[in-house]
Parts: sequence; C-alpha cells; structure tokens
Amino acid sequence: MTLAALRALAQAKLKAVGLAADHADAVAETMVAGERDGCASHGIYRLLVAAASVRAGVVVPDARPVVSRPGKALVRVDGGGGFAQLAFARGLPVLVEAARTHGIAALALNHVVHFAALWPEVEALAEQGLVALAVTPSHAWVAPAGGTKPVFGTNPIAFGWPRPGQAPFVFDFATSVVARGEIELHRRAGLPVPEDWGYDAEGAPTTDAKAVLDGAMRTFGGHKGSALAAMVELLAGPLIGDMTSRESLARDGGRGGSPIGGELIVAIDPAGFLGEETAAHLARAEAMFAAIEAQGARLPSARRYAARARSLAEGVVVPAALHAEIMAIGGAA
Amino acid sequence: MTLAALRALAQAKLKAVGLAADHADAVAETMVAGERDGCASHGIYRLLVAAASVRAGVVVPDARPVVSRPGKALVRVDGGGGFAQLAFARGLPVLVEAARTHGIAALALNHVVHFAALWPEVEALAEQGLVALAVTPSHAWVAPAGGTKPVFGTNPIAFGWPRPGQAPFVFDFATSVVARGEIELHRRAGLPVPEDWGYDAEGAPTTDAKAVLDGAMRTFGGHKGSALAAMVELLAGPLIGDMTSRESLARDGGRGGSPIGGELIVAIDPAGFLGEETAAHLARAEAMFAAIEAQGARLPSARRYAARARSLAEGVVVPAALHAEIMAIGGAA
Repeated sequence: MTLAALRALAQAKLKAVGLAADHADAVAETMVAGERDGCASHGIYRLLVAAASVRAGVVVPDARPVVSRPGKALVRVDGGGGFAQLAFARGLPVLVEAARTHGIAALALNHVVHFAALWPEVEALAEQGLVALAVTPSHAWVAPAGGTKPVFGTNPIAFGWPRPGQAPFVFDFATSVVARGEIELHRRAGLPVPEDWGYDAEGAPTTDAKAVLDGAMRTFGGHKGSALAAMVELLAGPLIGDMTSRESLARDGGRGGSPIGGELIVAIDPAGFLGEETAAHLARAEAMFAAIEAQGARLPSARRYAARARSLAEGVVVPAALHAEIMAIGGAA
Repeated sequence: MTLAALRALAQAKLKAVGLAADHADAVAETMVAGERDGCASHGIYRLLVAAASVRAGVVVPDARPVVSRPGKALVRVDGGGGFAQLAFARGLPVLVEAARTHGIAALALNHVVHFAALWPEVEALAEQGLVALAVTPSHAWVAPAGGTKPVFGTNPIAFGWPRPGQAPFVFDFATSVVARGEIELHRRAGLPVPEDWGYDAEGAPTTDAKAVLDGAMRTFGGHKGSALAAMVELLAGPLIGDMTSRESLARDGGRGGSPIGGELIVAIDPAGFLGEETAAHLARAEAMFAAIEAQGARLPSARRYAARARSLAEGVVVPAALHAEIMAIGGAA
C-alpha cells in the first residue's frame, strides 16, 4: 500500500469507530509514521488497539484539548481524556515559541490516552531546531530493581537532537528490559522468554511469557534502568499532577485499555546558550556522530530512517491477516 | 576522624598545593560529603586526584567564576578553568531563582574541571524544593554499542526529587558499565574483569583490566545505555558550547588530569505545574516510594543516607595508608 492509501484507511476506520475527525487525522498520522519507519508494533497494527480503547470507553472520542500557560516557560495541554496526538499537536507550536523565548521550556500533556511511541514528539521538535526530551509512564507492569512486584510502567525515554540538513538524532526506548509487546509475541507463539525478563505473580523468576505478563517485567540495566523508570514516573506523574503507572492501571479497572495519564516534554533552543556560534557547535556534534559511525556502530535512529526511505519510495506491506482484521473494524466501511 | 577535622585537613592541603581559599573550601566540602556518605572513591581520596590536577597545571587554581544570563531561563557560569565546585556554588542561587520565576531553567557550567560525583548538585537543588537533572561528559573512555573504540566519557546522569521532611530522592550513575575506578581497582589487585566490561586497544573483548583501561569500556544496558551516553555528550557538550569527551581527552594531552569541560543542570519547580496542589502531588510520589520499599527494594539514595547518619554520629575512618599519602601532599603542613 502507498502511505497515502494507508493514511486514508486509518482515518476512515478511526472515524468509523466514532473518533472525531481531528483526532482521527492526528492518530492516523502517528500510525502511518510508525508503519513507514518499520516499527510494526507501533504501526497500523495499533488501529486495533486504538479501536478497542474507543469501544471500551477508555478514550473520550471527541475531547477538546485545552492549552494553558501555568508558568512563563511552562505549557500545559489538558487532553480531556482523548488520545495524546491531538493534544500534542495543539501544544507543539506553543512549546516551540516558549523554548525560543526562554531558552528552555516544558510541555505537560495531561489526561491523555497513550498507545504510541514517543519519537514522533521529539522528532517534531528537533525538526524545528530544538533539543527535546520526552517521558511518559504507562501501566504498572515493571518491578523495581531489588523487588519483584510491579510499580513502574514500561516508561519510555525519548530524545531528539537537530542535525542541519538531515533527519534528527533520535532515540526512544522503554526502561523495561523489553517492550511488553515482545513478551506478548512470545506468549502467542508459545515460546519461553529469557529468565531475566521477569517474575511470576509470586515473585519467582520464570521463563513463561504469560506468567511474566501476569507478574512483573524487569527494568533494563539493573538498578540504573530502575532509577530511570522511577524518574519517568515522577516527571510525567506527580510533577505535572497526573497519574503514576500504578494509578493508571487501577483506573483502567481491568478494561485492558491503553494507559491514561500524562507526558512531559522538555525543549531547549541551542541558540539560547550558543547564539551566533550555534552552527559551529552543532558541527562538533556531527564530528561525534561521525566517530560513532566510522567504527561501524549505528546511530539509534539509523534503522528507522532507512525503513522510512524505502517506504516513501515503495510503500509498505500490510500482512493479509492484519489487513482483514483492520477491514472488519467498525463493520463495513 | 570527625567530619570537622576531615574538612579542616582537606582545606589545608588544598591550600598547600596552591588552590585559592574559596576554591579550597568548596572542593573540600564535596570531598567531605563523599566520605561522609560512604562513597570512598569520591571521598577524601580525591584529595590526591585534585592535588595532582593542580600540580599538572590542568586546573586554574585561582579562577574567578563569571555568572551570566544568556537567556531568560538560562544561566551560565564560566568557571575559567577552575574546579567545578565554586562555579556551581555561584550559579546555584541564580538557577534556583530562574527556575522559580519561569517554572523551568537550565544552568551551564563551562570550562570547569570535574573530579566529583554529580549528586551534590542535584541534592542541593532538591533541598530547595526543586526537581533537578544533571549531566556531564568526561574523557573518551567508553565505546558506543556496536563499536569498540572510545567516543563517550563515563557520562553520569544524576536526578534529584524533593521529599518534604526528609532527604531527597537522588540517583547518580555512570552510563559506562562500571565506574572507571572499579577497573583501576581490579588492575591494582591483579584481578581479571568480567568479559562484558570492555575491549582492548585492538577492539577485542578482554578480561585484562589494564587492556580495558588502554582500550575502551562498554556502556551499561547495551544500546540503551549507549544512547544515553550520547545524550549526555550532546547536552553538556555542543549544546552549551563546551567539550565532548573526545575533545577533553585530546586537550588533556596525556597529562592524566581530570576531565575539563561543561556540565548541564536542569531545574524544575514543582509549584510551576502544581500551584497550591504541590503538597498533594508530592504525597503521591511518596506513595510510589512506599510501594518500592514495601517489597524490600531500596531507593537509590538509601545506602548513602544510612552512611551519612553513621558518619555524622561517629565520624569516618580514613585508612592509615591513605592518611599518610594525604599528609605528604604539599610537603609538611
């Protein structure tokens, strides 16, 4: 399928389940971007997830995001229980302006439903020449280092850095040892998971995928990953007056919906500290990237950008089974 | 020794090697704090490191830090080639005021010599009720994931979160797989290191500690730790117009001095997003900490605070050999 055809399909299906047109367009854009960049787990497959969240009443389908300025360099968008994409789109130009005016600024998204990766947010900011850091909790599925009971979400951290003349340096990773979807894939395939991925509900290490899903995942990188997961909870939970992953899971009440809560995005304008020397110092960053790539190591975003180039030229392949499931959304459409 | 006696000794010895009095006091305070908190590697032992940096001409012993405001929510302290402690002390009240005024603010320390941990900085900010994140590069000793040649420093990340009525939630860790001092200790003891700690100068995995010191260490957590190490380079290097770890090592020119360069500290005022509800939301953070501790897991700062309580009550024990080395600094004193 061409990306245009995929976008039209996603928009139509999201509207068919009752999502307001501006939400449907914003959400479809994120799914198309995921599919385009080769992130199948955050691609068009998420149509099924988003449709389920709408049907389960987890998301407010016609929520109106409200932008406010709680501080000189602070922006808040209250998403009113809708998907995060439209709230971010409304907050983006205000955050950009605030960062350029003050040198640094922060955007809180509140009361939004998350199902997507964070890289679209930091990439959008880096495309405008800003450095960006984004974090969000999820549902309590991950145990702290030294424990075996879930406290943290998969709690991703994303970072974007502008690169003049080319796509930004971007990373986006879960602070859990793997993505939750990875364990789900093992469960579906009837495959065991490595013993260091998680614990069963009694707190014992296990290689049974379902037991880990019902118990707790581990963080990546031991106590360091666990510390970062806690930081994500704090920054995008209590600091902005929104839910921790434990509170989000409790609120879900077993409906199996996507996490509801907040997201924090910090943006820094390189011109703030660098002024007229901005270009010269960005060139020094390029020298570091070159030193990484010269030894055969890849930059975090390299694989995604390669997929993007292919998709833009050739379109994407949607598996027949997934396509059939998507076509069944919302009855005939 | 009592902490007061240790402080007096450190101040005297730093002055004896030629450090200006205000620098000596600020540097001594950091070393005493490290020793007090049971961080032997960042404690009074660092007197030997600091003295060596002064003798080698790596540090400007009487540098005058200059504070400026390059942006509304940006603070810069040009350390003039002196130790970082006095520069931070000069910038701290300005950063606190900027964060309270704008909701978020950033402090760049430029042209400073680093030998200490970052937790004193974030703890000082959290003690004033602010959330803080601090990063700094070092010397290029660490290979990116997928490579074997040094590009990154040990690149620590520190985070502080205020806890009403008690010591802040604080973490501070290297993005390298272990602290460089840990490998140095193995070398001195003639012990092999685990194979996943690093590479020799030819890029082959090795268990020889000296070979890793002459080659490259790995990051923690695979490609995720490597991504964070790159972020630290960018934020506290090019973004603030200061050196990357590769540039710092090149500048050192084999003198074996402490890293020279920059540090970035971001401070956020919880009252910015939370207003009158600040206390209620900070209490929700406490509920998360309780969920971590209730399952027997420790908070990142717990061990350090326990050591602090012991040291304040009983003083600290300085090994005789180290004490003798310290007493020899600067001749008779």
